[in-house]
Amino acid sequence: MTVVAESDLLERVLAGEARACARLMTLAERGDPAFARAHRRFAGRLGQALRIGLTGPPGAGKSTLVEGLARHWRQAGRRLGVVAVDPTSPFTGGALLGDRVRMSRLALDQGVFIRSMATRGVFGGLARATDDVVDVLDLSRRDLVLVETVGVGQSEVDVACSTDLTLVVLHPGGGDTIQAMKAGLMEVADLYVINKADMPGLERLVQELLDVMDLRDLPPERRPPILTTVASTGQGLQELARVVDETLLARRASGALAVRRSDNLERRVRRLVEGSLRRDVWETRRLSDHLHQRLAGGGTLSAYDLADDVLHLYRDAARDDARTGLEGTP
Amino acid sequence: MTVVAESDLLERVLAGEARACARLMTLAERGDPAFARAHRRFAGRLGQALRIGLTGPPGAGKSTLVEGLARHWRQAGRRLGVVAVDPTSPFTGGALLGDRVRMSRLALDQGVFIRSMATRGVFGGLARATDDVVDVLDLSRRDLVLVETVGVGQSEVDVACSTDLTLVVLHPGGGDTIQAMKAGLMEVADLYVINKADMPGLERLVQELLDVMDLRDLPPERRPPILTTVASTGQGLQELARVVDETLLARRASGALAVRRSDNLERRVRRLVEGSLRRDVWETRRLSDHLHQRLAGGGTLSAYDLADDVLHLYRDAARDDARTGLEGTP
Repeated sequence: MTVVAESDLLERVLAGEARACARLMTLAERGDPAFARAHRRFAGRLGQALRIGLTGPPGAGKSTLVEGLARHWRQAGRRLGVVAVDPTSPFTGGALLGDRVRMSRLALDQGVFIRSMATRGVFGGLARATDDVVDVLDLSRRDLVLVETVGVGQSEVDVACSTDLTLVVLHPGGGDTIQAMKAGLMEVADLYVINKADMPGLERLVQELLDVMDLRDLPPERRPPILTTVASTGQGLQELARVVDETLLARRASGALAVRRSDNLERRVRRLVEGSLRRDVWETRRLSDHLHQRLAGGGTLSAYDLADDVLHLYRDAARDDARTGLEGTP
Repeated sequence: MTVVAESDLLERVLAGEARACARLMTLAERGDPAFARAHRRFAGRLGQALRIGLTGPPGAGKSTLVEGLARHWRQAGRRLGVVAVDPTSPFTGGALLGDRVRMSRLALDQGVFIRSMATRGVFGGLARATDDVVDVLDLSRRDLVLVETVGVGQSEVDVACSTDLTLVVLHPGGGDTIQAMKAGLMEVADLYVINKADMPGLERLVQELLDVMDLRDLPPERRPPILTTVASTGQGLQELARVVDETLLARRASGALAVRRSDNLERRVRRLVEGSLRRDVWETRRLSDHLHQRLAGGGTLSAYDLADDVLHLYRDAARDDARTGLEGTP
């Protein structure tokens, strides 16, 4: 893509044109250098959209909740983006037909841009790609961006946290719920939503949540609120939307939002640096080839010996680059 | 730890002494350099134990299956290791009391060494630490090592694949089962185990599995067998153990096992190299401090700009090292 075309594309994204957004997102997902170039140019305009992550175990009804919240905020005239990072999400065609139909109706609304991302394929780069895609939505003047991930793997949980506010969605009688939370969901929740609150086991789940907060010795002011919803009927959605809006407003006013965004940015930069080093060692320096040769040599080798070997070669190559540099070749 | 103490520890591990094993595992989990040193010395002795991974969605009954298989193989006189990489596993105290009691009984058997690993805390190093812990079990003359992980996150699935054989455990009526499989379980299964096969929905689940294999266009010989069990009653366990034993025997004979182990070793070396580069940039070079300073400067910065900045500094530092090297200081 030429610089002129990039500039044109950015203008169209800024105008909120859906096809331009989709195209820029595809560049981001592919890790195309053109995206990084574009990002440097538009970074100054970012930060208008509020980013809300929703995560939780499969079956908690996250997508229905997203759809209900989206409908609520649309009625309030807000422009929305939805990013579903979940192969089991109805947004990606992974669920029951009824759900899919409902989601498609949402997708027909011009004020809602929906992007679903496969967790496979962008292996290792899921968080990077999601951040980039959310930035594109931010740039296209969305007021709110909802990011839905299944809350079980480390990278999925990371994605939901790279937002301004993280909702952990649970359901009563899930059985594995509290167990799943031990996988790290407890630490990331800004707000608990118990969906399917009309199912048996609500009180027990609330008690379990309170018990875990006690165990963690959380002071009252740092305890995430617990809200209940029945997303399929809309029950509790308005109240949830109100709490989300107010929390974000309060955090913006107190400066907590700026701190969180700075922390998120730091984690993001770390991921970019590490991804770049990874590419450098395996692709640019072609040390994969060397490793394959050593493995093909057979014999019982220590992984630690092999790793040292690769690292030495990598550092030697860097040193040679430096020597070349000293001799005057850039 | 001095070299003499390390040597003594290794002798005790080789003699199968449980406390020595636990100590070496702790060094591994901590990423202690003493473990890497020890590993280089004992690598030549590795490869005796057969490694079996079990993964699948929460609720499939993986731990009960592990316990049943372990009992079966113990009766056949084999020495076992069990590594539970799952915060929801009863081995880690995460489940119902009945399960815990049953697992403790297994733990009392001197011929079984059980190690549970938290998925948090060894963040980013989970696969590395698990490989190391399994190596220690291998070294302590276990015939079989079972590695149980919850099959939902990328890193958890990776762990289950770093074995000689991967069992994907499902249960009928799970609902999310096929969805969870889209998260990558389909690609890693050497063998499907449908546990809780006495529950309704068995036929449907089998059909769904076959459908997915059709979709993937797998030739008959590459289709993973589907076995059914009711681990809580022991039904099907003997047959499953037999198929596992035979498959491993056949793979050893055909050379497929050696290929798989070489592939696993390659992935492991990659993880070690990447972990080392990560430590180098953030800890040794202290570029975290630099990044914090830039972030504290405020303003809207592109993550890509910040990442470039860190990478330039990192490469400059490497170049300075090279110059120092040229001047004769090692």
